[in-house]
Amino acid sequence: MKSYQELSQEELLDLKADLESKFEKIKRQELHLDMSRGKPAKCQRDLSNGMMDVLNSTVNMRTDAGLDCRNYGLLEGIPEALKLMGDMAEVDAKNVIVYGNSSLNVMFDTISRAMTNGVCGSTPWSKLDKVKFLCPVPGYDRHFSITEYFGIEMINVPLLPTGPDMDIVEKLVATDDTIKGIWCVPKYQNPTGISFSDETVRRFANLKPAAFDFRIYWDNAYSVHHLYEDAQDVILEIIDECKKAGNPDLVYKFSSTSKITFPGSGIASLAASKANIEDAKKQMFVQTIGHDKVNQLRHVKFLKDLNGIKEHMKKHADILRPKFETVLNILENELDGLGIASWLRPKGGYFISFDALDGCAKAIVDKAGEAGVIMTCAGATYPYGKDPCDSNIRIAPSFPTPKELAVAAEVFVLSVKLVSIDKLLNK
Amino acid sequence: MKSYQELSQEELLDLKADLESKFEKIKRQELHLDMSRGKPAKCQRDLSNGMMDVLNSTVNMRTDAGLDCRNYGLLEGIPEALKLMGDMAEVDAKNVIVYGNSSLNVMFDTISRAMTNGVCGSTPWSKLDKVKFLCPVPGYDRHFSITEYFGIEMINVPLLPTGPDMDIVEKLVATDDTIKGIWCVPKYQNPTGISFSDETVRRFANLKPAAFDFRIYWDNAYSVHHLYEDAQDVILEIIDECKKAGNPDLVYKFSSTSKITFPGSGIASLAASKANIEDAKKQMFVQTIGHDKVNQLRHVKFLKDLNGIKEHMKKHADILRPKFETVLNILENELDGLGIASWLRPKGGYFISFDALDGCAKAIVDKAGEAGVIMTCAGATYPYGKDPCDSNIRIAPSFPTPKELAVAAEVFVLSVKLVSIDKLLNK
Repeated sequence: MKSYQELSQEELLDLKADLESKFEKIKRQELHLDMSRGKPAKCQRDLSNGMMDVLNSTVNMRTDAGLDCRNYGLLEGIPEALKLMGDMAEVDAKNVIVYGNSSLNVMFDTISRAMTNGVCGSTPWSKLDKVKFLCPVPGYDRHFSITEYFGIEMINVPLLPTGPDMDIVEKLVATDDTIKGIWCVPKYQNPTGISFSDETVRRFANLKPAAFDFRIYWDNAYSVHHLYEDAQDVILEIIDECKKAGNPDLVYKFSSTSKITFPGSGIASLAASKANIEDAKKQMFVQTIGHDKVNQLRHVKFLKDLNGIKEHMKKHADILRPKFETVLNILENELDGLGIASWLRPKGGYFISFDALDGCAKAIVDKAGEAGVIMTCAGATYPYGKDPCDSNIRIAPSFPTPKELAVAAEVFVLSVKLVSIDKLLNK
Repeated sequence: MKSYQELSQEELLDLKADLESKFEKIKRQELHLDMSRGKPAKCQRDLSNGMMDVLNSTVNMRTDAGLDCRNYGLLEGIPEALKLMGDMAEVDAKNVIVYGNSSLNVMFDTISRAMTNGVCGSTPWSKLDKVKFLCPVPGYDRHFSITEYFGIEMINVPLLPTGPDMDIVEKLVATDDTIKGIWCVPKYQNPTGISFSDETVRRFANLKPAAFDFRIYWDNAYSVHHLYEDAQDVILEIIDECKKAGNPDLVYKFSSTSKITFPGSGIASLAASKANIEDAKKQMFVQTIGHDKVNQLRHVKFLKDLNGIKEHMKKHADILRPKFETVLNILENELDGLGIASWLRPKGGYFISFDALDGCAKAIVDKAGEAGVIMTCAGATYPYGKDPCDSNIRIAPSFPTPKELAVAAEVFVLSVKLVSIDKLLNK
């Protein structure tokens, strides 16, 4: 097979005509398919319906120690939930706070607290002329929205197959004390699916930041979200590595059950050093009398322990794996060797990161939209929504059914081809 | 009966000896009784156990419009919950956002947002040299903790039987543009139990603040929390009054079901003008993908509608009323006419506000503590924990059983008498 670059103008025009007729045909189907967000599908939500049965009016709603989960109190969460979320985060329960339903909310609040009241005694960031964050790209749009909301300047750092380019991270962090943090999704990264290498984690733990209040914002959103039983990524535990490196307070680790139980009704957690936990609790003590402990108890009774979580995640994998494979197979069959796209084959997480020819991402997303297939906005994987090369597209295969996905992927591939041909014709 | 002021030194000493022997006797019982916080008792929590049965794995967890409550989405809450909380707040559902389990958290976030990003386009408060809040006193300690946390200067405003002293409020608000807000609990106020008069509400609605971003923080925590069926306070609806007065954006109204269903696992809401709601949602959109909609659905299915809430609240009243009466009767029988104390008889809410002789509150709370009865810290009802007269004590009768309460009230009364005698002896 020839790559598109090797085709003559005439061949490209012939191909374009053929593809356009296919595209018009699909367009007439008036599809409404959504590959834009990492939303679990209905059958995934159904996996946790049993969670609605573990508590009822005949069940004692007390913790093992006798505290009534229905009442006020226990700011940091019930002990059983601290243990469960600690086990999942690979840290001791005493280094954990369990929150409400959204780890994004915990991240927002953590940065909001730094803005108004500083980090472990530092000057509130709102009092500083300039605050900057490092943003490995492509990355998670909602992270970037948080830092943008607070007026924090974002600096792109390239993501390599091993994680962020640590040469750049080390240099910037060591020399610029206005850099206060870095966003990371260390495992099955959003959107690339890569996991940080041991060397990357160790280099993170050994950072020597110029800013006393620099922290790594380690969003371990996909820690147990494998697609394959026999090929799972394992990453080093960052809090432990930081401790070993003499940097115990360097990292905040965020987790949630949003993609384990119900996306909108899970529980979230922060894991960190004792000093960081104490600092977070100072805010929390003023902010709330405590989070929903009944839902914490519900999660503990349903998931039971880390092993229960792992077993539960296998069921998610059985649903997600064929979806990922459907999309990846279509990409491979249709685009391999054409010289117009590249992508990674993730072993877990929720996304496929797709790179088109430079300058084509936005046009491809628009084109797919014409035929009723909604993709994540091009640029969303970059701070300020600006992909400097306009090449990256995030594909989220979880929400449609496998049958819908096959159609959506066909539309996407057609869009990629058509936009690429236009790009090559107009070169 | 003579007042203590009329007793001779000798009579006081005799009385003291008698009371001290009673006190020592009670002390030997090694009591552990808590009248410190407005925590609903176990039998009150049990009233909502049925809420645990309305959802189970066989129940469709969709809204009437078909949205799956288990999934991400619907930032502002499910329509059914917006209606329910809107009805309770006496506003249209379109003026409501439903949040997670804590209205305190909503208030904290509202002020945090003002600090970092301003109010409807105003300068972020963190960029200003000085920000002040008016605090009607005595008031709710957790309100004061929020403003203190953000470094906002608090100014005491006396609370009259009709509400805050509006002459002072109007004057300060009109002349000082660093005053950005006022804390209010307009109905069955915490701790006094008074409700704002119609004139007070109208004067609030007609305020002419010097600061464009001044808001009234209207914490309607006890809107349906009556003790008596035939003697209920009714207050004017503030959002409507503000609109009539040409000040539609002047107020944020907060509510929650914390003292309706489960204290730790309720739902909270903000009601406000369209402009204020839009402003709040701008932050919320970045802060979270949405709050726990399954718990919103659970509340709707359990409480059904405003009438359901009212019926449910009668059951709470039946539990709380005898507790309030137990304490109030003991206060009346033991302290009336002695000239050493005054208190109000509330018709709703969670507290009895007690005023001792100046300089005695802290000593009384300490004294009661000696005998194992925990009261709210003296001073807690004032900003910075500083009651300038050291006279106010908040009594929270909800948590102990009626039997325990009778004992706790006896201890309290003995402590009041003993400390007052000491004060009079040392005058």
